[in-house]
Amino acid sequence: MATDWQRVGQQKRETINSLLPPQWKLAEPVPDADSLPNATKLPRSLLTEREIEITETHTAQQLAQKLADRTYTATEVTRAFCHRATIAHQLVNCLSEVLFDSALKRAGELDSYIATYRKPVGPLHGLPISLKDQFRIEGAETSVGYVGWLGKPETAETESEIVRMLIKSGAVVHAKTNVPTGLMAIETNNNIVGYTWNAFNRHLSSGGSSGGEASLIAMKGSLIGLGTDIGASIRLPASANGLYGLKPSSGRLPYKGVANTMEGQNIVESVVGPIAHRPSDLQLMMETLLSSKPWERDPCVLPLPWREIEQVEIGRRARTSGLCFGVMRWDGMVMPHPPILQAIDKIVTRLRENGHEVVEWMPPSHAEAFEILFQVFTADGGAEIHKTLALSNEPPVPQVAMSYGTEPGSLPTTSITEYWALQLRKRSFQERYASYWQSTASTTSSGRVVDAVIMPVAPSASVKPGQGRYFGYTGVANVLDYSAVTIPVGMVNKESDFSVEWRGHVPVSDMDREIWESFDPGDFHGAPVAIQLLGRRLEEEKLLAIAQEFERWLL
Amino acid sequence: MATDWQRVGQQKRETINSLLPPQWKLAEPVPDADSLPNATKLPRSLLTEREIEITETHTAQQLAQKLADRTYTATEVTRAFCHRATIAHQLVNCLSEVLFDSALKRAGELDSYIATYRKPVGPLHGLPISLKDQFRIEGAETSVGYVGWLGKPETAETESEIVRMLIKSGAVVHAKTNVPTGLMAIETNNNIVGYTWNAFNRHLSSGGSSGGEASLIAMKGSLIGLGTDIGASIRLPASANGLYGLKPSSGRLPYKGVANTMEGQNIVESVVGPIAHRPSDLQLMMETLLSSKPWERDPCVLPLPWREIEQVEIGRRARTSGLCFGVMRWDGMVMPHPPILQAIDKIVTRLRENGHEVVEWMPPSHAEAFEILFQVFTADGGAEIHKTLALSNEPPVPQVAMSYGTEPGSLPTTSITEYWALQLRKRSFQERYASYWQSTASTTSSGRVVDAVIMPVAPSASVKPGQGRYFGYTGVANVLDYSAVTIPVGMVNKESDFSVEWRGHVPVSDMDREIWESFDPGDFHGAPVAIQLLGRRLEEEKLLAIAQEFERWLL
Repeated sequence: MATDWQRVGQQKRETINSLLPPQWKLAEPVPDADSLPNATKLPRSLLTEREIEITETHTAQQLAQKLADRTYTATEVTRAFCHRATIAHQLVNCLSEVLFDSALKRAGELDSYIATYRKPVGPLHGLPISLKDQFRIEGAETSVGYVGWLGKPETAETESEIVRMLIKSGAVVHAKTNVPTGLMAIETNNNIVGYTWNAFNRHLSSGGSSGGEASLIAMKGSLIGLGTDIGASIRLPASANGLYGLKPSSGRLPYKGVANTMEGQNIVESVVGPIAHRPSDLQLMMETLLSSKPWERDPCVLPLPWREIEQVEIGRRARTSGLCFGVMRWDGMVMPHPPILQAIDKIVTRLRENGHEVVEWMPPSHAEAFEILFQVFTADGGAEIHKTLALSNEPPVPQVAMSYGTEPGSLPTTSITEYWALQLRKRSFQERYASYWQSTASTTSSGRVVDAVIMPVAPSASVKPGQGRYFGYTGVANVLDYSAVTIPVGMVNKESDFSVEWRGHVPVSDMDREIWESFDPGDFHGAPVAIQLLGRRLEEEKLLAIAQEFERWLL
Repeated sequence: MATDWQRVGQQKRETINSLLPPQWKLAEPVPDADSLPNATKLPRSLLTEREIEITETHTAQQLAQKLADRTYTATEVTRAFCHRATIAHQLVNCLSEVLFDSALKRAGELDSYIATYRKPVGPLHGLPISLKDQFRIEGAETSVGYVGWLGKPETAETESEIVRMLIKSGAVVHAKTNVPTGLMAIETNNNIVGYTWNAFNRHLSSGGSSGGEASLIAMKGSLIGLGTDIGASIRLPASANGLYGLKPSSGRLPYKGVANTMEGQNIVESVVGPIAHRPSDLQLMMETLLSSKPWERDPCVLPLPWREIEQVEIGRRARTSGLCFGVMRWDGMVMPHPPILQAIDKIVTRLRENGHEVVEWMPPSHAEAFEILFQVFTADGGAEIHKTLALSNEPPVPQVAMSYGTEPGSLPTTSITEYWALQLRKRSFQERYASYWQSTASTTSSGRVVDAVIMPVAPSASVKPGQGRYFGYTGVANVLDYSAVTIPVGMVNKESDFSVEWRGHVPVSDMDREIWESFDPGDFHGAPVAIQLLGRRLEEEKLLAIAQEFERWLL
């Protein structure tokens, strides 16, 4: 007999399914992961020519342009992405809220507006946007993966500030996307929607916590969306799904009215950031959001407009004297799998071919950052997470139990004195890291500090369910409050020669050994590989300018 | 028999006195407060003509100019301020470290430099600067008023980042100034230097915690210095001593390597800011410090250069359409004394005469901010303060015992869950306050939000020893992380007619009654009165531009 939390979870799953238009649903049986590991190509066979053109041949920026010049109507664009999101959900299980009806209604209003006034309502006019399940939208639920948070639809008053901004800019929000229960996991799984799969290899994880968002975008069920990141949560799923994902520094984008776990925790802050296929689309989102002066409405946002001048300067130097990069292949804790190491080598080679300098990155120990981060995440001993699970008596999924235990009280709590000491330890790490960054001026040939650092996003392209454990490569940027962006580089190909990298590494810990030995080219075949570009605090403009240069170099 | 902490305190007092050059000392007996309540005029009678010219007839900016063009040598300027600081200390007890020897040595080096290279080393070339006792300077001690922290002189490695910046800019640091034990009080008193007096009325407090700094500057023992502020500590002493004091938002000026109390506390952050006689001097300090890109060396500093454009815009509107101000005469908790209410009325009248708009300010309850602030300040139950007192077994001075008790364990401690709830309560207050500020667009005649808010700095011009209790008028800016500046308006004159304001107020609490009834025109005669100008987060440029307009309007 199903318990109450199982019943509520199942009802929500059924509601989601019932909101997917029957005419767009896949014929049963839906192909399984063995028969169709890579789900990204299937939609082509089911969409109309025009739907394929709309969803596959544009950047978000180009599509916004064609909506503004009325090449496409908002209605047909929204319909095409809803169609594609329907297919995506059946293949990768990525949606948490289906908002097609309200999206099409809004699209109709936008079409009327542009017909009447001959101008778009804003820079995102008619562009379908998907949002991680933390964002509150009038009429939709915000479960954040908790069964106990279902059943309380948001109102106009509780809507997230950033959602209001998107709507004012003309965006059409057509879906919310799946997250792990309470967000604190790097695979996406909960007792409501269940497990979200990697779009390119459905035996593997979508990553987390913005896993639904990244898988949906990889399926082109939307071209751009928003996630959040406090340790890995934008970058790990973006990387696993072959996408660009930007983690800005805190205070850049508004978090006001966005649901969260351990909201009052203020040593390492969660941030909102965009995920997309192209870095220019990340920039479209950043510029659009900052152009409305969000700091006037959300006091946690810094009064820092988008600084185009920083980008002009990068472009100029990229074409003249060249840029300078640090490179870090491993962090001393967990050796990346061979495809990651190869991707970094490929990047470094291309950079040097293009006249840029690359120096070894030997910063203060990332192990310390990982330790700080874990202590921050468990400062209340998991009390809040277990209390929220208890609302419905649901058990934690294994990905949550891994860090917080299956029962309340599994972890020690922190005193205020210890918490303050942790804050100071973080600040000391930030100061030492900043000093190291400054010191690179004496090692580069230009005499300038490095522009950005190239490093892995994660030790593996993705993970099998239950194996996601390590987020040290991404977490360091959260501890530092640095900006970071993922750059997709290719796919794991089981035909490649990994023999060189297979040899030589002597694992430094059990975790290192387990992750190192988990690499099997066959298992990871087709999974996207990305690298991470790390910038200093609030260097989003610079990073996106460099990411756009990378795109050119990687062609 | 003196206990050890008393002996150590006395030794330090004697060391300070022994470092004051005998030829500059006042003849015994030094005039007492009854015979000479206002100490600010006395130095004139003891200084040479040229020393008076140097210390009394320039803004810091003008003096820097005359040092740069070699009208004065750094040595004679430093000597003049050391002379004056010597007199000041004997009258108001403001110094915690006497650094005249190293200052004169540095001044000599600067004179050699400018003679050789015919240019100043930086914008503060040869300008004597005083610093609150939190700033660490090579060779000097940093007691922060704790006996237990004496005896450990700083090294080149431990020097505060901002001190290095000042020295690089050419500044000469000639003194450090007194603070209350552990900083958490609004009068300046400790078991080392003792009580610091108001320069204009030596029966009254200098204010705190930057009390030594403000009293020294009021005596023109320096023209400009740095304090810190987490609840009142720049603004209250600046106001009490007739000075301009800027509390920037957090992240504007570097705090790296600055000693502090409850350093890891991260809900309301202490900030560094300048105190000076003129707002243009506050600006000189801000521009100088930001011009060296402190964010590259202190990762807690925001990459936000000094934005002159914000100031140009204020100047333009001040001369054309006019500015718009909110005005708040009382916060509903503690009614200001009549001289404060009169000062606000005077300002409002002048503003309207000058074509500016003034609207009533009715924000979310400041009582909530004060409650949040007090909970933040006592989150560890005073554990750290009592632990630091215990290093020497010294008792807390009454001003510290008032908040933290005489013994450890006098206050409850906060759990992590409660601390996180407090952080959220603060953020909610910030959001509601920001919404209110935004809403003023619908009440002003221009349709713009108010530019700044005029309100009291404190309910009284100053306090008698032991009576400093209330810092709600300043504390609200710390909870909001807003920028704020004090603007001196005049002095309490016992001959004035306060009869109107004496009537009508019905106290709302015992504290309100006690403070209201403590006003006696004779007691407060001569004490400076200031008002506070509140700006939003990181609006330092705007505030200083307005403060400079105010100076003109108040002439």
